[in-house]
Amino acid sequence: MNLLENIRIVLVEPMHGGNIGSVCRAMNNNGITDLAIVAPRPETDWDDARKLSCQAHAQLEARKEYASLAEAVAGCTLVAGTSARTGFYRDTALTPREFAPIALESASTHKVALVFGREDKGLYNEELALCSHILQIPSSELYTSLNLSHAAYVCGYELFCAADVFHPSEEKADEASSALRERMFDMWREMMVQTEFVHDQKLDHMMMGLRRIFNRGKLTIPDCKILMGLAKQSVWVANQWRKAQSND
Amino acid sequence: MNLLENIRIVLVEPMHGGNIGSVCRAMNNNGITDLAIVAPRPETDWDDARKLSCQAHAQLEARKEYASLAEAVAGCTLVAGTSARTGFYRDTALTPREFAPIALESASTHKVALVFGREDKGLYNEELALCSHILQIPSSELYTSLNLSHAAYVCGYELFCAADVFHPSEEKADEASSALRERMFDMWREMMVQTEFVHDQKLDHMMMGLRRIFNRGKLTIPDCKILMGLAKQSVWVANQWRKAQSND
Repeated sequence: MNLLENIRIVLVEPMHGGNIGSVCRAMNNNGITDLAIVAPRPETDWDDARKLSCQAHAQLEARKEYASLAEAVAGCTLVAGTSARTGFYRDTALTPREFAPIALESASTHKVALVFGREDKGLYNEELALCSHILQIPSSELYTSLNLSHAAYVCGYELFCAADVFHPSEEKADEASSALRERMFDMWREMMVQTEFVHDQKLDHMMMGLRRIFNRGKLTIPDCKILMGLAKQSVWVANQWRKAQSND
Repeated sequence: MNLLENIRIVLVEPMHGGNIGSVCRAMNNNGITDLAIVAPRPETDWDDARKLSCQAHAQLEARKEYASLAEAVAGCTLVAGTSARTGFYRDTALTPREFAPIALESASTHKVALVFGREDKGLYNEELALCSHILQIPSSELYTSLNLSHAAYVCGYELFCAADVFHPSEEKADEASSALRERMFDMWREMMVQTEFVHDQKLDHMMMGLRRIFNRGKLTIPDCKILMGLAKQSVWVANQWRKAQSND
């Protein structure tokens, strides 16, 4: 099953429709679909919300609305509240990265809530009291107050990364064998000689420099072929040059 | 020293002032101060930028403006471009988490750039070509397009988290700047033309292959000098050859 389907994002009394929309977009980026809003404000600019949600209209329209936080999280096992401040019982806070495996463990069987407070005042102490976990997002001591959608985004992102839904792309081409690399280096040595780039005494030194450059990352078979083609062509040009000279 | 001081956030032709402001706030949350904007749009809503930057007015006001990406990153060693799309040479992309220790290693002595494209079109291929690294932010396959400030935030966040535990290793040879690398690539392009290694249509493709090879590991100043010397010599040989032919 998709663990992320059991993650619920809960916004408590959000002030700006634009932020609600940005949170929906962030949920969409991280494969999260369940949005709950506690005590939505009558003046909320829903047009702004739709605009900023980009292609996450579905999440926005499917949102559930509740009168209180207690109702919004009633069906959840874990309830993680975010807080920038210290004090209260925030000194037991986890980072979102620390919380992610705990959340996913629970999400295999139950709903897990991530709760975000008002843009200006965050979550009140009685709301934090409803939370089984307090999350503190790592940030500079000089400015700990995150934009609401940034906070929701990064918590979703940590869950998404942990859920291992993402498979980073890797170099697809086959790695070159030592034998192929050595053939390539031989051709480069030949190029340096034929183009009279270096004299005999400095040749080995120069080859070590080139080996160091090319061996820092892994070379693929196509890479070696490019490099061999280039060397071959320079050798050919050098030979043409010599022939032309001897014809003079 | 504070490694994060050597991180430069580069926004290329951002469309919305609000996003620029949100990026500043995100930088502030992650202890990053250096902002560069490439080709700022005359219609930019700077009031909106100021409003959304919250307490990051200083970062916003201290921004540097450049006409081109090449100028904005000329003094940087590593240049990491973000891209949501696949294809081109994006198949070698790193996640921001994978890139963080690489960036901090370099940031102990040099400037490192994180580059973000336009909200609608991202970075163009010729801009990605200037990047030593391509970053792909883990996201749901169903919707990979991140809000600009979310993308900048999460890259800054990964650096901030990594900086907490990172200890740079001892220094060796000096790393090459973007400007020096680009001079080297220009000379290699010239070599490929002069030695008739590739035809015009395949030249860009071949250059991308070479960029990929050389950017896998970091290039030092002596490395670049070797590579430039080699190219210069091949061009010289090719010219001698042509001269000799015309004398026939």
